[in-house]
Amino acid sequence: MIDSKTSAEILSVAHEMADAARAAILPFFRTSSLLAENKLQGGFDPVTAADRAAEVAMRDVLARRRPQDGILGEELGTSEGTSGLTWVLDPIDGTRGFISGTPTWGVLIALSDESGPQLGIIDQPYIGERFVGGFGQAEVAGPMGKAALKTKTNTDLSKAILFSTFPEVGTAAERAAFEHVSGKVQLTRFGMDCYAYALVALGQADLVIEAGLNAYDIQGPIAVIEAAGGLVTDWNGGPAHHGGTAIAASNPELHARALAILRET
Amino acid sequence: MIDSKTSAEILSVAHEMADAARAAILPFFRTSSLLAENKLQGGFDPVTAADRAAEVAMRDVLARRRPQDGILGEELGTSEGTSGLTWVLDPIDGTRGFISGTPTWGVLIALSDESGPQLGIIDQPYIGERFVGGFGQAEVAGPMGKAALKTKTNTDLSKAILFSTFPEVGTAAERAAFEHVSGKVQLTRFGMDCYAYALVALGQADLVIEAGLNAYDIQGPIAVIEAAGGLVTDWNGGPAHHGGTAIAASNPELHARALAILRET
Repeated sequence: MIDSKTSAEILSVAHEMADAARAAILPFFRTSSLLAENKLQGGFDPVTAADRAAEVAMRDVLARRRPQDGILGEELGTSEGTSGLTWVLDPIDGTRGFISGTPTWGVLIALSDESGPQLGIIDQPYIGERFVGGFGQAEVAGPMGKAALKTKTNTDLSKAILFSTFPEVGTAAERAAFEHVSGKVQLTRFGMDCYAYALVALGQADLVIEAGLNAYDIQGPIAVIEAAGGLVTDWNGGPAHHGGTAIAASNPELHARALAILRET
Repeated sequence: MIDSKTSAEILSVAHEMADAARAAILPFFRTSSLLAENKLQGGFDPVTAADRAAEVAMRDVLARRRPQDGILGEELGTSEGTSGLTWVLDPIDGTRGFISGTPTWGVLIALSDESGPQLGIIDQPYIGERFVGGFGQAEVAGPMGKAALKTKTNTDLSKAILFSTFPEVGTAAERAAFEHVSGKVQLTRFGMDCYAYALVALGQADLVIEAGLNAYDIQGPIAVIEAAGGLVTDWNGGPAHHGGTAIAASNPELHARALAILRET
């Protein structure tokens, strides 16, 4: 259990980390000086200098303010802690979007205990927009000021807006399952990276369905969406915070309807 | 011919129109008060109150400052002028992106003479980002200040980043032609609406290939991209400003290579 004094401190630390990541990343955005390494052999998964700089910057904040916590970071791996709490960091989620110049990549930060993520941040540095959920709070701060996050109440699949990052989704079977749901919704859109999860929390989109995720890709979004009233599980209805498949929905009833279709494929 | 005094006035009018459109649209963005009408029978092409309000606001600027020019607007049709110049307006390009809450729709403004668009603006009101090209100028103004627009010099398709709004692209034949090019590039991304054209002008993306366009969807992007060094034609290599198909490339050599593949399909 995290008491209110600790949760206030953690929230402050999380904002400081997101601020540090923004400052580290923006000098690299839309410049030609990116180091695009190929992380997966044969695949196209560029890691940028910005990615590394942002994780270093976030770890510096933690070393100073919360050295007792563990860290799981995309770039620099795992550090053990003593508090039972772990920060789960994806300094740039959506590196392909980043190298294309789109404003839909983000910094993902989560704080997890043994039961899963308790606090999450999705930050879009270029827009200057931050989505925060956890400890009873769900809020966006951006170009139009601050607002509470609240998911949609629509439970009708035929009126739903569905997102995924790319049409292939995952394996051929995963793509087929996704397309089964896609065939029943009003609108399917691609290409938003982690911003799609923020749109569910904002009450703009109804569903995000993805596969092939790592823990650091989804823990921040889980906390933000669930604090705003939504539900995120894997495609079997179990916890999604270890990675793999994920279905994020704006409410439990819509989630159940979409999950049933995914599972019957 | 447009002299320098006239071009300065036109540029000033265009910025005033874009400012007016921003002010008209933003109160509607991410609210639930949108009027989503179905414009095309059986299709999903919502028109919002914001769309109409923005075109009215832009026409008000023109009525006051350039009553002699013609207007072709997505929402309110055609008005004849006497100057030989026509403003071509798409108040919200990417209405599906708009109703999903994404920051990738835009206000498109072009000024055309008998040979095609001479000035273009792509404006993203939520980010507060404006791409302007024409009369020897190509510039972006946004969250990170002002910068010149300059397209990429890459001529190698295998290193190119390709965008289209949605994977279906157009007819089955159009989709097949698109996928032929897509199979030869490094990365294909979807979902950016008119923002994809801005990314080509910015030197971030290499290609945008789309079909089923109207004149008002493409005239602003043509002027912005060509002022930044790129080239936009239809899929036969002819003028794209009447709508239909479009291939926008960051330079003529890359354009020729991608066009050859489109045409052999």
